[in-house]
Amino acid sequence: MLISCPDRRGITASITDFVYQNNGNIEHADQHIDAQSGTFFMRIEWSLDDFKIPAAKMPEKFSPLAKKFAMKWSFFLSDETSRVALFVSKFTAVSQDLLLRHEAGQFRCEIPLLISNHPDAASIAERFGMEFFVFPKTKKNRSRVEKEELRLLRRYKIDTLVLARYMQVLSPGFVRAFPRRIINIHHSFLPAFAGSQPYRQAFERGVKIIGATSHYVTDRLDAGPIIEQDIVRVSHRDSLADLKQKGEDLEKIVLSRALRWHLERKILVYNNKTVVFD
Amino acid sequence: MLISCPDRRGITASITDFVYQNNGNIEHADQHIDAQSGTFFMRIEWSLDDFKIPAAKMPEKFSPLAKKFAMKWSFFLSDETSRVALFVSKFTAVSQDLLLRHEAGQFRCEIPLLISNHPDAASIAERFGMEFFVFPKTKKNRSRVEKEELRLLRRYKIDTLVLARYMQVLSPGFVRAFPRRIINIHHSFLPAFAGSQPYRQAFERGVKIIGATSHYVTDRLDAGPIIEQDIVRVSHRDSLADLKQKGEDLEKIVLSRALRWHLERKILVYNNKTVVFD
Amino acid sequence: MLISCPDRRGITASITDFVYQNNGNIEHADQHIDAQSGTFFMRIEWSLDDFKIPAAKMPEKFSPLAKKFAMKWSFFLSDETSRVALFVSKFTAVSQDLLLRHEAGQFRCEIPLLISNHPDAASIAERFGMEFFVFPKTKKNRSRVEKEELRLLRRYKIDTLVLARYMQVLSPGFVRAFPRRIINIHHSFLPAFAGSQPYRQAFERGVKIIGATSHYVTDRLDAGPIIEQDIVRVSHRDSLADLKQKGEDLEKIVLSRALRWHLERKILVYNNKTVVFD
Amino acid sequence: MLISCPDRRGITASITDFVYQNNGNIEHADQHIDAQSGTFFMRIEWSLDDFKIPAAKMPEKFSPLAKKFAMKWSFFLSDETSRVALFVSKFTAVSQDLLLRHEAGQFRCEIPLLISNHPDAASIAERFGMEFFVFPKTKKNRSRVEKEELRLLRRYKIDTLVLARYMQVLSPGFVRAFPRRIINIHHSFLPAFAGSQPYRQAFERGVKIIGATSHYVTDRLDAGPIIEQDIVRVSHRDSLADLKQKGEDLEKIVLSRALRWHLERKILVYNNKTVVFD
Repeated sequence: MLISCPDRRGITASITDFVYQNNGNIEHADQHIDAQSGTFFMRIEWSLDDFKIPAAKMPEKFSPLAKKFAMKWSFFLSDETSRVALFVSKFTAVSQDLLLRHEAGQFRCEIPLLISNHPDAASIAERFGMEFFVFPKTKKNRSRVEKEELRLLRRYKIDTLVLARYMQVLSPGFVRAFPRRIINIHHSFLPAFAGSQPYRQAFERGVKIIGATSHYVTDRLDAGPIIEQDIVRVSHRDSLADLKQKGEDLEKIVLSRALRWHLERKILVYNNKTVVFD
Repeated sequence: MLISCPDRRGITASITDFVYQNNGNIEHADQHIDAQSGTFFMRIEWSLDDFKIPAAKMPEKFSPLAKKFAMKWSFFLSDETSRVALFVSKFTAVSQDLLLRHEAGQFRCEIPLLISNHPDAASIAERFGMEFFVFPKTKKNRSRVEKEELRLLRRYKIDTLVLARYMQVLSPGFVRAFPRRIINIHHSFLPAFAGSQPYRQAFERGVKIIGATSHYVTDRLDAGPIIEQDIVRVSHRDSLADLKQKGEDLEKIVLSRALRWHLERKILVYNNKTVVFD
Repeated sequence: MLISCPDRRGITASITDFVYQNNGNIEHADQHIDAQSGTFFMRIEWSLDDFKIPAAKMPEKFSPLAKKFAMKWSFFLSDETSRVALFVSKFTAVSQDLLLRHEAGQFRCEIPLLISNHPDAASIAERFGMEFFVFPKTKKNRSRVEKEELRLLRRYKIDTLVLARYMQVLSPGFVRAFPRRIINIHHSFLPAFAGSQPYRQAFERGVKIIGATSHYVTDRLDAGPIIEQDIVRVSHRDSLADLKQKGEDLEKIVLSRALRWHLERKILVYNNKTVVFD
Repeated sequence: MLISCPDRRGITASITDFVYQNNGNIEHADQHIDAQSGTFFMRIEWSLDDFKIPAAKMPEKFSPLAKKFAMKWSFFLSDETSRVALFVSKFTAVSQDLLLRHEAGQFRCEIPLLISNHPDAASIAERFGMEFFVFPKTKKNRSRVEKEELRLLRRYKIDTLVLARYMQVLSPGFVRAFPRRIINIHHSFLPAFAGSQPYRQAFERGVKIIGATSHYVTDRLDAGPIIEQDIVRVSHRDSLADLKQKGEDLEKIVLSRALRWHLERKILVYNNKTVVFD
């Protein structure tokens, strides 16, 4: 269960007592108070073995407490499985890495769908046994094509989108259809080097460290809530090609962490920032 | 308050309810369950503004709950101030860094005492306005000298000892007088390169990364519970002197983190490991 | 060209002059002097566009200079392609990552051969279009099996062996057949936690950082010259399974760096250490 | 000796031969070719023990070679000692750390002068035995005050300026008086968060990593050639005060590396980037 609400005396006690009174055994509980805004955040995980409330009744049973503290809350069963669609363009190293990790059991989800604006990725879909769809986009046809994509995503019951170097801007309407459910990997240490050529910009600025950033997609390009970042050192000896090569490893790791945390419901968003309970 | 006990249903609920019923406002609460040993750990911090129980009454009021769950527990007021003695030998860069940090307000403690086996450190004590005592040690006189040291530490009401490159082995009896209150910094990535010449050993093994480790001192040399570690890259270009130089920065940072967490009561020890609630 | 010899005045000048007089254009030159042993190391790369000496004549033409300075030297053409055999056991995430990188053009080599002591890896070989051979090993049959393996490796003209979590000890005779050409990845920060269960050992010691180490295989288990190491932070929250998961990413990256440097002839070994010219 | 020139066949051979013919023994030689601009860079260090050319004659003797290859070059004797002035404002942790390192012999220089726009730093100057001067600045008086500062710097024969959190903008004229000799530490991972409140900006953007950047000061604010950068992880648990605390350690380390490399003449600047020969 993920909860956020204005901070007040007794929130933790009330929630843990609710679980206890209904015979739940708390396995993890993490809380955070944002002092600036006076907001309380909690992630709490309990065993359902002897828990008295069936999942379907939770909204009814929990709502008195939720109302009392003006909570935003959501809960998930750990055997619920997300369905993810992967969006790629021509560069596929990051997406293939993600799919290998998925095969190895790193992600609690299904990834039935590969979507691209280029036909090149078809062989990837075949290798990993996925459905593949190509949607070539132009400025002109974007609005029509996005409608088709949305239809497809609904048909496949997709709840989470991963953009693994998908070099296309999504329209605000499309983004709104998946709020906090579109994860992008940007190949720079945001907010440095937003835009389409981060490695080139980093190379030209002569930085000594490059980075990668995974974030939720919002209306504003490369400005959504940051989920995870990591970096690697570079030097004057590194050519632009070296930067790309070194950065690739970062992108893989940063994106896979972000997706894992998302799927394990460890992320709360507020104020265009994330609370990541690890 | 720091708590550990066998894991059972209802612990968190009972503790948070205890605080709530007595009008405490929880500011931080962190818990951890060690799945292997089935042990529950908690650190909980609450405001005393309207709290009904005065500190002196806490043992009496909390003990029924503690007994019910077989808890080990301790509590501290955040305005209690530790008193620290700093032990050094000839190499003083790490201890001076610690003292500068103390001046800058990084540590919630007083550091009235500098103890060394060499007279060289006298100037440090003068610069930072501390009392200075020299105890030259030999194998022969160790037991007598340690007694004098213990007397001095009692006189100055010292509760925590920091060994900042103090190249002397402490006797088990001395260690027992300050259980989990002697913090050492070892200049390697333990358990690699225990003993007295870690940089030389690292240099000779040709490692590509060196480290520093801060740990509580126990009977067994360099084998106590690890509080913090960090590393830095080295290469074939680095001489032994370069390793020492690079490692020094690590030692400063790792030791200062360990001391800070210790003073803020963020560390629980079990099974020769630490739980560090950050 | 890779060169090592006792340090003396005029080595660099003589070598660079040799290249210059024969119309070579130096593209990279790196040197290192090991002060302790007084040894000079150099890696020098030049363009053959107008170079006067054909590859076949190099030994003859360079030997007077080599003799004068008592050099050990070797040279390679950048279009020479190594042939690599990959050894795996049951855990295949690291080897699959390596093969994806190979497909993406990260390694200047061919990898025609996958060898395992278990049949499970057959599907990997198929996915990546490689030949697959199973050699089940017991203490009893090792010597006979290794002979068969050596025959196979010769048949496939293999010059470099990569052990990607190949949990079998090689005999000294086998190792001697590929001196400084067998690269292993060990899942700890060597010399800490040598042996077969490094993650378990790390978990039990309560370290705050885990590592991975790639090294050349020698007669002594996990004690060969270290090529590359890297680390990742862990905490009390990480279970043994988390350590394995986090470590896996390290293993992939560290092994791929080591193999790349090996194939680009950037590594010189002396004194059981490596000089890695990057 | 530091050299840069258009890349051409025979440069390295000519330089090393020049040293060799004059009985110098090369101790370090590092070269780099910037492929994009076709520029050759070299740093070469040799022993003067039997070297035939006295320092005073070097310009005359080396100039034919320099002309032939259109070199920019400079040379330094390793016993030449730079004279550094330290500029601080109110926050002095970074400058005190620098002075402790200087005492411990980390920097090949003298630091006779502490300059501030506030009187607070006087006690620092006293502690470390330096001359102290206060120059309160306003927009109005800046041009006059800078003139006084320049006079003072000349009087003390200062060649290098270190800005350790000196929160004042220098005029282009002042900067021009010390080209590539003013080192600043900026408390962010540039180019992210330039300007005066980088920690606040980082906090508000919700980044997961913060950084520090040392660079040469040029006309454009926070946009000069980057010498060194480093980073540290942060999380939603870190308050703005925590960011400042964590960042402070970075600032100390990054600034001290940058100054050391500068003093050891390991830095070449071109194209608003640095080549750092380590």
